[in-house]
Amino acid sequence: MREITLDDLGDIASGAAVLGTGGGGDPYIGRLLATSALRTHGPVPLVSLDEVDGDAVVLPVAMMGAPTVMVEKLPSAEQVGLAATTLATYLGRELTHIACAEAGGVNSLIPVAAAAQLGLPLVDADGMGRAFPEIQMVLPTLYGVRATPMSIADEKGNRGVLDTVDNHWAERLARSATIDMGCSAMISTYAMSGRQARDALVPGTLTLCAELGALARTARAGHADPVAAVVDRLAGQRLFTGKVVDVARRTVTGFARGEARLAGTDGDAGSELVLRFQNEHLVAERDGAAVASVPDLICTLDRESGEAVTTEGLRFGQRLTVIAAPADPRWHSPGGVELAGPRYFGYDLDPVVLAR
Amino acid sequence: MREITLDDLGDIASGAAVLGTGGGGDPYIGRLLATSALRTHGPVPLVSLDEVDGDAVVLPVAMMGAPTVMVEKLPSAEQVGLAATTLATYLGRELTHIACAEAGGVNSLIPVAAAAQLGLPLVDADGMGRAFPEIQMVLPTLYGVRATPMSIADEKGNRGVLDTVDNHWAERLARSATIDMGCSAMISTYAMSGRQARDALVPGTLTLCAELGALARTARAGHADPVAAVVDRLAGQRLFTGKVVDVARRTVTGFARGEARLAGTDGDAGSELVLRFQNEHLVAERDGAAVASVPDLICTLDRESGEAVTTEGLRFGQRLTVIAAPADPRWHSPGGVELAGPRYFGYDLDPVVLAR
Repeated sequence: MREITLDDLGDIASGAAVLGTGGGGDPYIGRLLATSALRTHGPVPLVSLDEVDGDAVVLPVAMMGAPTVMVEKLPSAEQVGLAATTLATYLGRELTHIACAEAGGVNSLIPVAAAAQLGLPLVDADGMGRAFPEIQMVLPTLYGVRATPMSIADEKGNRGVLDTVDNHWAERLARSATIDMGCSAMISTYAMSGRQARDALVPGTLTLCAELGALARTARAGHADPVAAVVDRLAGQRLFTGKVVDVARRTVTGFARGEARLAGTDGDAGSELVLRFQNEHLVAERDGAAVASVPDLICTLDRESGEAVTTEGLRFGQRLTVIAAPADPRWHSPGGVELAGPRYFGYDLDPVVLAR
Repeated sequence: MREITLDDLGDIASGAAVLGTGGGGDPYIGRLLATSALRTHGPVPLVSLDEVDGDAVVLPVAMMGAPTVMVEKLPSAEQVGLAATTLATYLGRELTHIACAEAGGVNSLIPVAAAAQLGLPLVDADGMGRAFPEIQMVLPTLYGVRATPMSIADEKGNRGVLDTVDNHWAERLARSATIDMGCSAMISTYAMSGRQARDALVPGTLTLCAELGALARTARAGHADPVAAVVDRLAGQRLFTGKVVDVARRTVTGFARGEARLAGTDGDAGSELVLRFQNEHLVAERDGAAVASVPDLICTLDRESGEAVTTEGLRFGQRLTVIAAPADPRWHSPGGVELAGPRYFGYDLDPVVLAR
């Protein structure tokens, strides 16, 4: 894929929702925005990490906030580019590339819209290889890249720049601003040189999203199992097949937090799976024992279509297959686990390492 | 006064506390900071509004937050200049003058410290002629000067710039950041040209503060009545003399809110005065009827010494004289009353206009 066209957006949105591990925002919203931007500005050039010049100025952009809110409060087209240009102005640098801060849902497609609007190439990479709920949870943190200066913009035209002593302060101040802005805002963060991007980002994200989407689509068309195609591509495993029997969800401190309970069907009849989430799925417990956890990916897929279901889309009676897939290996380093392992989220649990 | 020296700080602090109308922060804190800055950097040149060049870049600086917190969490010396330089960098302009956003308490002396630290002249003026609790409550708002871009900095080194669609959004976002920063932060806001400053600011603030302080000091030394000297200079009036019998104070939403109850003594025996405040005194009610209100000044002075008592310093048993004084006449315009009249603060009350 050398450029992203209107025809690619469906597969990218579908694959991004899988990597979103339940979070990353409703991919439908991202697809609407990207579609509108590509219609107006034409296709977006996609460049691989090794093509990015060492001195390039790479600005990742993302939506920040509660996915439950994004469904009702759509971002404006103007807002998409504003975060990036505000940060570039503060840095006094000319912006050369847009990148994805996270893979997943709306946040794989927002950068497509931003790149189209600003007439810039998009880097085929992201900062996580999945979605995580807090700003500091990106691999660039492990490489000493700072979250700030970062910018934040809302759909009303309010914007700000934060320059903090560490990434946790960036998360805290930006989270409060996001809440004031109505629980969803656009940010640009982890400004990087091309050199830093090549070290710290996960390569091939948009290509992977498009592949995952195409695999599931092709499987459906050929009456094959789309879930199997996704599991296979991610070198993951099926955790559980069942029916949603309970969802508890609260939009608190700017996040969608909660848990979902699935009663097993098919080969899992008689068992129960509990999913605990903060925007993204964090821990999966089968009959009381953790069977998967962050930093690995836990994804909820529709049992029939293989389409990902986000945490805000979970509903009573849905028939799902829950899968797990290994995260980028750097997430399993001590620094990675400290940043985004189960203990950070308050679970007294070492990360469950999937059999590979 | 052509410059501010160490010898002037005592009188300025004392007079500023009067104009602070109970708020503006503990002047003792401001005096400590200014003393330390003048000791290191020498006297600060003071220029009157009509000496400021039309193209000058004037940045007002202030502390934002709850005065109750400032008493315990002292600002750092570095923080004082950081807000101004952060804003100047964002504006891409060379800063020529520091000014006071408000007269009162710590906020008359913080700019002295900032000017000393940055080696810049201080404008003898402020944005209110008194203290008010919220960012948009300055006369420049009536002249169309915007609060943003504004900067905010804390003692840890965190800083940010806000650029909002209106001044109420600036207040809202900056207030949340202030709360995260520990309920007190340094801000620079209402960046102005010299031309705008000449129109919109209240002239002579620091000179007036120094005069008020000197008048009370001289009266005390000569066994005259310091309260009378202050009332006279402000063309104000005595409202009540009494003893504090109850103080209810809550630090909520980043403000010190509450009310104080005084039982009358001397000529006011048998009467009761209730003071309602949000950082600053907002309304004074004598036996249930409002006798003074914002936008006019309501000041609590020690009955004997004439020294101002801040709302966070009010204590059971204190003997106080409460005085009122007319605000800058522009505050009584329809726009001024809308911005800072009793109704804005939730009181179903037209402003009480003092007999002049």
